[in-house]
Amino acid sequence: MTRDFAARPEQLFRAHTDPVLFARWVGPDDMATRIDHWDASTGGSWRYVSARDGTEYWFRGCFHDVRPDRIVQTFTFEGEPDGVALETLWFEDLGDGRTRLRTQSLVDSFEGRDAWLRTGMEVGVNEGYAKLEGMIIDGAV
Amino acid sequence: MTRDFAARPEQLFRAHTDPVLFARWVGPDDMATRIDHWDASTGGSWRYVSARDGTEYWFRGCFHDVRPDRIVQTFTFEGEPDGVALETLWFEDLGDGRTRLRTQSLVDSFEGRDAWLRTGMEVGVNEGYAKLEGMIIDGAV
Repeated sequence: MTRDFAARPEQLFRAHTDPVLFARWVGPDDMATRIDHWDASTGGSWRYVSARDGTEYWFRGCFHDVRPDRIVQTFTFEGEPDGVALETLWFEDLGDGRTRLRTQSLVDSFEGRDAWLRTGMEVGVNEGYAKLEGMIIDGAV
Repeated sequence: MTRDFAARPEQLFRAHTDPVLFARWVGPDDMATRIDHWDASTGGSWRYVSARDGTEYWFRGCFHDVRPDRIVQTFTFEGEPDGVALETLWFEDLGDGRTRLRTQSLVDSFEGRDAWLRTGMEVGVNEGYAKLEGMIIDGAV
């Protein structure tokens, strides 16, 4: 997925590594996220829970690499503990205070990919990025 | 890659999670490995160095999942810091004190896969497993 933001790379990096900021924008509009564990450094790990109407969805992974231009992490929805994605986020400086965020989720089968897509994750991702854009406009990031 | 061992799943698991044991068998015969950092638990991380004729090769990653039947971890050769593999190891109990070790390395391109294969890693992997088999016979694992 690729999306351009009216923000500097450092701002997008902060929005993805600061747990308070991250919890404010990640996920769809009708879910609230609480960080359970967060060590956004190379070799660290993370876990958070998103809730909707009293139902909790837990996610966790480890941070393989946390660099200003790139984050590599693993990702598992604990409801499907055997499924693991390798996620890479690139922060590409476009100049003039704009940054291209490119993300890649690598899974080990096309079935796994299609199962992810069927969850409607795209809606949640886009709603999350819209929230992040609002935070950038508000100067919160 | 798939290989059957005359060992119980717990023995193979220990050989992959105990740093002293792991350093004894991993890699080709003409290299020696020293563990720099090792936390073989879910959310932990690892780093080691293998040396041949005074030249050091550093590797590192994080442990996404450490379970008796499966280990999921990331893997980077620090000489190519942008390359990341997602590795999964399954320990399948075949009964009668035998275990099938199945490993999968997931990278994000066929070029990346072919580059790995060209390094001659297969020789090192097979020599490493042969050492591990020797340790099993010797009762070291």
